[in-house]
Amino acid sequence: MCQLLGVNANHLCDVRFSFHGFSERGGRTGDHADGWGIAFFEDERGVRLFVDHQSAVASPVAQLVRDYPIRSRQVISHIRKATHGKVALQNCHPFVRELWGRYWVFAHNGDLKDFSPYLHGNFKPVGDTDSERAFCWLMQEINKSHSQVPSVEELSLTLAELCPTIGVHGTFNFLLSNGEALWAYSSHLDPVPEGAPRAPILYSLERKHPFTRASLKDKDLSMDFSALNAENDCIALVATEPLTEEENWHAFSNGELRVFVNGKLGPLPRPCV
Amino acid sequence: MCQLLGVNANHLCDVRFSFHGFSERGGRTGDHADGWGIAFFEDERGVRLFVDHQSAVASPVAQLVRDYPIRSRQVISHIRKATHGKVALQNCHPFVRELWGRYWVFAHNGDLKDFSPYLHGNFKPVGDTDSERAFCWLMQEINKSHSQVPSVEELSLTLAELCPTIGVHGTFNFLLSNGEALWAYSSHLDPVPEGAPRAPILYSLERKHPFTRASLKDKDLSMDFSALNAENDCIALVATEPLTEEENWHAFSNGELRVFVNGKLGPLPRPCV
Repeated sequence: MCQLLGVNANHLCDVRFSFHGFSERGGRTGDHADGWGIAFFEDERGVRLFVDHQSAVASPVAQLVRDYPIRSRQVISHIRKATHGKVALQNCHPFVRELWGRYWVFAHNGDLKDFSPYLHGNFKPVGDTDSERAFCWLMQEINKSHSQVPSVEELSLTLAELCPTIGVHGTFNFLLSNGEALWAYSSHLDPVPEGAPRAPILYSLERKHPFTRASLKDKDLSMDFSALNAENDCIALVATEPLTEEENWHAFSNGELRVFVNGKLGPLPRPCV
Repeated sequence: MCQLLGVNANHLCDVRFSFHGFSERGGRTGDHADGWGIAFFEDERGVRLFVDHQSAVASPVAQLVRDYPIRSRQVISHIRKATHGKVALQNCHPFVRELWGRYWVFAHNGDLKDFSPYLHGNFKPVGDTDSERAFCWLMQEINKSHSQVPSVEELSLTLAELCPTIGVHGTFNFLLSNGEALWAYSSHLDPVPEGAPRAPILYSLERKHPFTRASLKDKDLSMDFSALNAENDCIALVATEPLTEEENWHAFSNGELRVFVNGKLGPLPRPCV
């Protein structure tokens, strides 16, 4: 399986501390060494995407990301352990597509069995992963459901309807952003099939005033967030495993969708029933 | 205006020497300091895109590209001097879109006046440049003209028909690749409007056996290509200004389209007349 990291904040923030710990899982504290990627939204519209088929601990591009303070309000990162699809650049997440003059960024953790939807729309996979197929299908269905960039609430509702359709095929944890909000969904088969390992789930954290010191779980490194943040700063993080000690990461329930706007958990969608 | 560099080769090649000279134009030997970008195709399918709104001489990402030997058969790079659109990441070329499960990469040099085509299809600009509008219109029209990835010859014919439509709006030098071939088009208004500077044009070069030594025009650096290349290696380069001394760069005529496949100039399209 893979590892996911998502960041949503109300201010431009430097994610090097989190990426430092996260990228350790790409070959050092984890065996997810089949490529990695990170996408930073800038100015809500522009996207800076780095992908590499090398492991995140060995990749010179990952070293640049650990060293270069790229400041962003929306970040999605992924470390890959190949299950579907060969080790190749086109199979590295996050994937990016354009719709309605916005970039949409997606990364997936999980394993979808027998998921071959009919893609009749304008989004086709370039690589051969189940993840990119799921993203293309989601984009096709989002495109059918709205005529322009929907509000955060509208898109949350659409996703709440679409996600379970994919979730029946296996573990489906994903992060999606259009530069305005970060959507995170976590689901797995229940009960877990016999003999299968515990399914990975997502955890999220809202870091806000009063800021404290926290240490990375994956590296001997700690940071005093009170020295770096202003009182009004809010930052939400989502990850497949909590990244830090001493902070309250909240596990997603099975089939739960969360949306983060301006560094805070947004209102949950209310489906029309 | 901006600067373009395109590379098409029959083998995975290291473009650091060319990029070294080219990136000098982003702030040192040229005043194109409003961002830059480079896209490398890998494995025909995957694309590694680096963009930065800093100048190419100052950008840490450009330093990585100068240092890290990324090997590719298709490369498109661009150094921006903003004419249309603010200095922002979403306005940095190359632009990338997906169509028929392939990535398409585009970069433009020039200045298009009053070019606001009706974009009714699936490609919308994210930023606010004339260049991205031109790319979206080309993708929309290519999508209408073919039902799947066309052959190099078919796409050359389509482009030969479409390009003059944009060319009447001003200087339109561009590079386009889908990982299989590199298309280059060069056109400008003729006669040049009174008081306007000489319009930039494209030049191309086929580097092949017997390989010689060449020096960069923009930096005191030379390289002996005979020591680096095998006898069968072919590499084609396209640029807005010749990059090297001692090599025969061929200027494009006004309105000329060239296509490069496997490091060689391909057959010219024969329009149906």
